[in-house]
Amino acid sequence: MSSRFWRPADVLSATRPPIAFAGSRIDRADHIRADPAAIAALQTAGARVLRLDGLDPVLTEQGGLDWGTLADADRGAELIFLGIDEAQRGCFVEVPSDAPSGGPHAGPASWNAMSVLEAGELAAYGGARALVSWHARHRFCSFCGQPTVLAKGGWQRTCSACSSEHFPRVDPVTIMTVEHDGRLLLGRQPRFPAGRYSALAGFVEPGETIEEAVARETFEEAGVRVRDVEYVASQPWPFPSSLMIGCHAYADDPAITIDTTELEDARWFTRGEVVDALGAVGRGESGRAFGAPPAYAVAHLLLRWWVERG
Amino acid sequence: MSSRFWRPADVLSATRPPIAFAGSRIDRADHIRADPAAIAALQTAGARVLRLDGLDPVLTEQGGLDWGTLADADRGAELIFLGIDEAQRGCFVEVPSDAPSGGPHAGPASWNAMSVLEAGELAAYGGARALVSWHARHRFCSFCGQPTVLAKGGWQRTCSACSSEHFPRVDPVTIMTVEHDGRLLLGRQPRFPAGRYSALAGFVEPGETIEEAVARETFEEAGVRVRDVEYVASQPWPFPSSLMIGCHAYADDPAITIDTTELEDARWFTRGEVVDALGAVGRGESGRAFGAPPAYAVAHLLLRWWVERG
Repeated sequence: MSSRFWRPADVLSATRPPIAFAGSRIDRADHIRADPAAIAALQTAGARVLRLDGLDPVLTEQGGLDWGTLADADRGAELIFLGIDEAQRGCFVEVPSDAPSGGPHAGPASWNAMSVLEAGELAAYGGARALVSWHARHRFCSFCGQPTVLAKGGWQRTCSACSSEHFPRVDPVTIMTVEHDGRLLLGRQPRFPAGRYSALAGFVEPGETIEEAVARETFEEAGVRVRDVEYVASQPWPFPSSLMIGCHAYADDPAITIDTTELEDARWFTRGEVVDALGAVGRGESGRAFGAPPAYAVAHLLLRWWVERG
Repeated sequence: MSSRFWRPADVLSATRPPIAFAGSRIDRADHIRADPAAIAALQTAGARVLRLDGLDPVLTEQGGLDWGTLADADRGAELIFLGIDEAQRGCFVEVPSDAPSGGPHAGPASWNAMSVLEAGELAAYGGARALVSWHARHRFCSFCGQPTVLAKGGWQRTCSACSSEHFPRVDPVTIMTVEHDGRLLLGRQPRFPAGRYSALAGFVEPGETIEEAVARETFEEAGVRVRDVEYVASQPWPFPSSLMIGCHAYADDPAITIDTTELEDARWFTRGEVVDALGAVGRGESGRAFGAPPAYAVAHLLLRWWVERG
């Protein structure tokens, strides 16, 4: 953990917490998505259908995901083929006609799921949630306005009128720690719990690289110019469809000018303050200088990465 | 260039070819997108409007982008605010009512632009192209089917009926070289020019990390299992809206089983064969063993990275 280049592979093989929403053990079986007969053949009595409450997970008394069967499913609902599990069972999730479209933040039920679900189950839930909410937001063709229908086992929607094909969205978001003189730049959004500071973040836009997005967002939000952007790790974050791309960068000038529409504060924290804040998370406390992001967020991992590589 | 960890910053500062479509010098001026008065104030006689032929670039006799003025613009067309150039001029591009939606591959005019345009101009074109084609594909609300209108200077569309907000898509794609015993795995798609082999690639799906997408795509397309995925560099690729995420990984078992719906061949190439193929690109030739991807593709950079880090 102390090597200069701590690869994502190391992150994934580390002890808990791993990257939340990564590590699904469901085989996506991409090759049969376009084969309706093969998907139908998996719709047996043994097939599993993930139960959701809106977009929230439903947990069993044992703290696992609640999987029902096709017998419980609504025959009128659209069905997404998630893949094949280790017992060779087809895994599905329904898109109810009243499925919510999902917001940009994780709610209490999702945070609870992150704390209790085993990694593979949490990943299965996250992938299913992202797909269901995408279908709920794409029942019409953005090209011509006519209704779309589910295709390719739920990995596509096709326009009933103009035949345009639409694919699930994955929105790349850069999230970055910035270092200057042994201290780390973290910011505070107004919606954060009291005392919380976290990594700055923002969507990658058309026409820029990951590194350019890191530099632009850091300058927009905190007025800080960065160099030498390094990739650290990524995380699927299904609220509603982000791919968090965790990076680290360096600043030569520590002067901060915050964008008050995004942040209410940004500060440089010492290594000791970050170590203290990370330690406090495990005790359910806030650190002495600030509260670190929760263990399941990639921002937490970025802080750990910075501390552990020394 | 021979260091073990060749960072994207090095790539960006290297001599030509840099990463095509990166390096725009237009300030996106995100803070004024939501300020119609500020955008209007930039719509002066000095404002620049990028000329496009459909989605293709229009080049001047000197081989630069052809920028017109607002006087040339169609008053009925939607106008996207691209940002502010180094001379403090507002930069815009129109979305004509008949704007094409754009396909998944670069056409001859785009390949020509990659070879003749200066890096900053190519990036300005790429960003503008991705935005125009996104608007052309999102004139209706995917949530309710009613017409959308341009908002926030073209960085959003808003539904005229349900007020849903829609944002430009950026689709993350993994593209990866895989190494085994000093050789590199490359594949050949049927649409490639004769002799061409390139890095395998595929879209990141909901519910997976970048590393998981690399592993899944390599196994799906070539039957090869990988470990220790490393990020190398990224590239915006506006056909129509990809973010190419270039990675390198390692395989323990070289046995190949290709997916014939994606590839017509995949092979392991020696370092000498890759060096020869890269050298041939500059002479407009195919290498002795295979033809390398063109200099402007991130796949070319991945091959160079592998050769140069030794």
